[in-house]
Amino acid sequence: MSEVKNAFYAQSGGVTAVINASACGVIQAARQNSDKIGNVYAGRNGIIGALTEDLIDTGQESDESIAALRHTPSGAFGSCRYKLKGLEENRAEYERLIEVFKAHNIGYFFYNGGGDSADTCHKVSQLSETLGFPIQAIHIPKTVDNDLPITDNCPGFGSVAKYIAVSTLEASYDVQSMALTSTKVFVIEVMGRHAGWIAAAGGLASSIDGDIPVVILFPEVDFDQQRFLDKVKTNVDKYGYCSVVVSEGAKWPDGKFLAEQGTRDAFGHAQLGGAAPVVANMIKEAWGYKYHWAVADYLQRSARHIASKTDVEQAYALGKAAVEYCLEGENAIMPTIVRTSEDPYRWEVGKASLSDVANVEKFMPRDFISEDGFGITNICRQYLTPLIQGEDYPPYQLGMPSYVRLKNAAVEKMLKTTFKI
Amino acid sequence: MSEVKNAFYAQSGGVTAVINASACGVIQAARQNSDKIGNVYAGRNGIIGALTEDLIDTGQESDESIAALRHTPSGAFGSCRYKLKGLEENRAEYERLIEVFKAHNIGYFFYNGGGDSADTCHKVSQLSETLGFPIQAIHIPKTVDNDLPITDNCPGFGSVAKYIAVSTLEASYDVQSMALTSTKVFVIEVMGRHAGWIAAAGGLASSIDGDIPVVILFPEVDFDQQRFLDKVKTNVDKYGYCSVVVSEGAKWPDGKFLAEQGTRDAFGHAQLGGAAPVVANMIKEAWGYKYHWAVADYLQRSARHIASKTDVEQAYALGKAAVEYCLEGENAIMPTIVRTSEDPYRWEVGKASLSDVANVEKFMPRDFISEDGFGITNICRQYLTPLIQGEDYPPYQLGMPSYVRLKNAAVEKMLKTTFKI
Repeated sequence: MSEVKNAFYAQSGGVTAVINASACGVIQAARQNSDKIGNVYAGRNGIIGALTEDLIDTGQESDESIAALRHTPSGAFGSCRYKLKGLEENRAEYERLIEVFKAHNIGYFFYNGGGDSADTCHKVSQLSETLGFPIQAIHIPKTVDNDLPITDNCPGFGSVAKYIAVSTLEASYDVQSMALTSTKVFVIEVMGRHAGWIAAAGGLASSIDGDIPVVILFPEVDFDQQRFLDKVKTNVDKYGYCSVVVSEGAKWPDGKFLAEQGTRDAFGHAQLGGAAPVVANMIKEAWGYKYHWAVADYLQRSARHIASKTDVEQAYALGKAAVEYCLEGENAIMPTIVRTSEDPYRWEVGKASLSDVANVEKFMPRDFISEDGFGITNICRQYLTPLIQGEDYPPYQLGMPSYVRLKNAAVEKMLKTTFKI
Repeated sequence: MSEVKNAFYAQSGGVTAVINASACGVIQAARQNSDKIGNVYAGRNGIIGALTEDLIDTGQESDESIAALRHTPSGAFGSCRYKLKGLEENRAEYERLIEVFKAHNIGYFFYNGGGDSADTCHKVSQLSETLGFPIQAIHIPKTVDNDLPITDNCPGFGSVAKYIAVSTLEASYDVQSMALTSTKVFVIEVMGRHAGWIAAAGGLASSIDGDIPVVILFPEVDFDQQRFLDKVKTNVDKYGYCSVVVSEGAKWPDGKFLAEQGTRDAFGHAQLGGAAPVVANMIKEAWGYKYHWAVADYLQRSARHIASKTDVEQAYALGKAAVEYCLEGENAIMPTIVRTSEDPYRWEVGKASLSDVANVEKFMPRDFISEDGFGITNICRQYLTPLIQGEDYPPYQLGMPSYVRLKNAAVEKMLKTTFKI
């Protein structure tokens, strides 16, 4: 084994418009330190690639391809939804990881994901203690849900926030044009099953003066049907129209999601739709307004074409910082974004201990939500606004964004054993 | 009455990302010819503004505001869904128009809309013949549906096509990343109740080599459930995932829309959802694949942030040309886009007689749809590709597009009579 250890990098959970920017930061920083870090091996489809010894040799990608990751959405190496159990529950998984890491001389573990991944990364970081295998594990935060603690915000969130703010603005202009004789209410459903960060971004469609009537349904606020309907009507009476941003996680006081309305198709199969059509129909039944509704779904988190420049820079910076912390000997940490100044907005990279990060969820503070529960406060606006600053357009060719496709060449397997997922 | 007549301009039907670029072209051209055209009065909420003498004085807007219309989506003066009946059926409406036009010295009528509006414009153009009132009426084409005849394409379509192509590409990257352990199929529902032009644009997400598996459901092709399900499975087997673009107008052989699946909620109310959840659920039931679905709705037609530069230029050019044709004495025409060269793509402005345009719908030619009915042919690709060329980003401020809000000051009413819509 050489002195210079290789690194393992994997993407985990739902992908974002900028997770590849973090990958770009990791790989470029590693290449700049090739005297200290050997190759970067990426897990094909996340941690599953490590368990099955299905590693991607990023060394075979050109500098241009790696640079292009910065403007390419989704997970270039494949991601997965697969949570490692605890060491006691499934020791075999950790022993397998060590077997693969040993076989490929891997001494650095970079895991790019959300809360669950932070937990996994934490367990890997303890492998030298628990199983005697020397490894440094660093978690790189990524989640559109913005629900990781300590870091001021999470890479991935700023871009989805920008997408939702811009889309809500544009659709509001549209419905306003049509309102006299046609559509009066537009409903957009956004992601965020547990926390209303993304829904809150819809509030940015309106200026601080409230020039555009936007009603937000947060997961944090129990749905009060009559108050909601009245709020919509008040807006239509005043402005002629109303936009509604509903979180997929919005729910009734009994905890049932709005989306679960017991809808059945002709064959009695369970409901198909989301919260948006439910809310839209509710308004129609109460007030007779013509409506339109949209469900943004994956469009919102993959919309690299309208990514926030701040978000891209932060995603890249945290990937790069992960490597630098690693070279400083750090283990069991996550680089974070620290807001050092509010106006003008300034940030720098900090770090958090994974024991403080793992399994902690950050919800919207109550003072971010307006008193009536249907909007954002100025404190919230102050928090969100810097995160959507700047545009970072990808290059285009023939009218379409030039997103990179990597070769993703496999590293030759060293082990004779396989591992069943 | 002065020699110099005023102009009336109105926006009609569903708005687009670039209809205001046409308005910009009309008003700027009129301002450049102020010796021949007086003020441009816009109808507040379309033709209803003319009938109710609710006119907007565009002369009160600064040159900067008018210039900003070029990058502002939606209908800046308000649009409406209101079709004038025939002269025989509702003579009162036409007499009222004349009354208002006379009162405000209006001699030029610019109507910016789709097929129904072309018909209305045609009727107005005949007013000098039918009711002895001298007026020149020119129709400026606008429709995301791209279904007007004669013109090579319609302003508004290129931008929605670009939005759908880019969104389908981005979401396809996303689902590919997730496919091993999670979502394998992504379904996006797009507009186009009668014609599959917008759905076809989803095919541009894939290169000519078919690097991304996209299955399209066109309104022009009767839905064959088993063949569709087999096609999706073939793609998932080969690529690991599949994207589906379903037109809201996709239908069963008996003519029923896919979206009308007889879905009932818990209270027995009729279905709420669109075609996307129906199709997604169908795939899940057949093959068990995890799915995600999106309904783009208004987001697609208002997405000025990702407008096609070609589309913006054409929308502007046709607005400008309408004024120029008018000054040449034309009446009862529509400026058109003429494709003069395929490669490199070149276009110029032409004109069509409104009698050839009104009430004719242009469908996708059969040879634009692949033999199996689920994709686009190279001929279609050749037609579509130039229309999404170029980006024309709006200016941004504090992370959000700076769309203009006009003053929309009312012109003083001259008439003592009112008109009930």
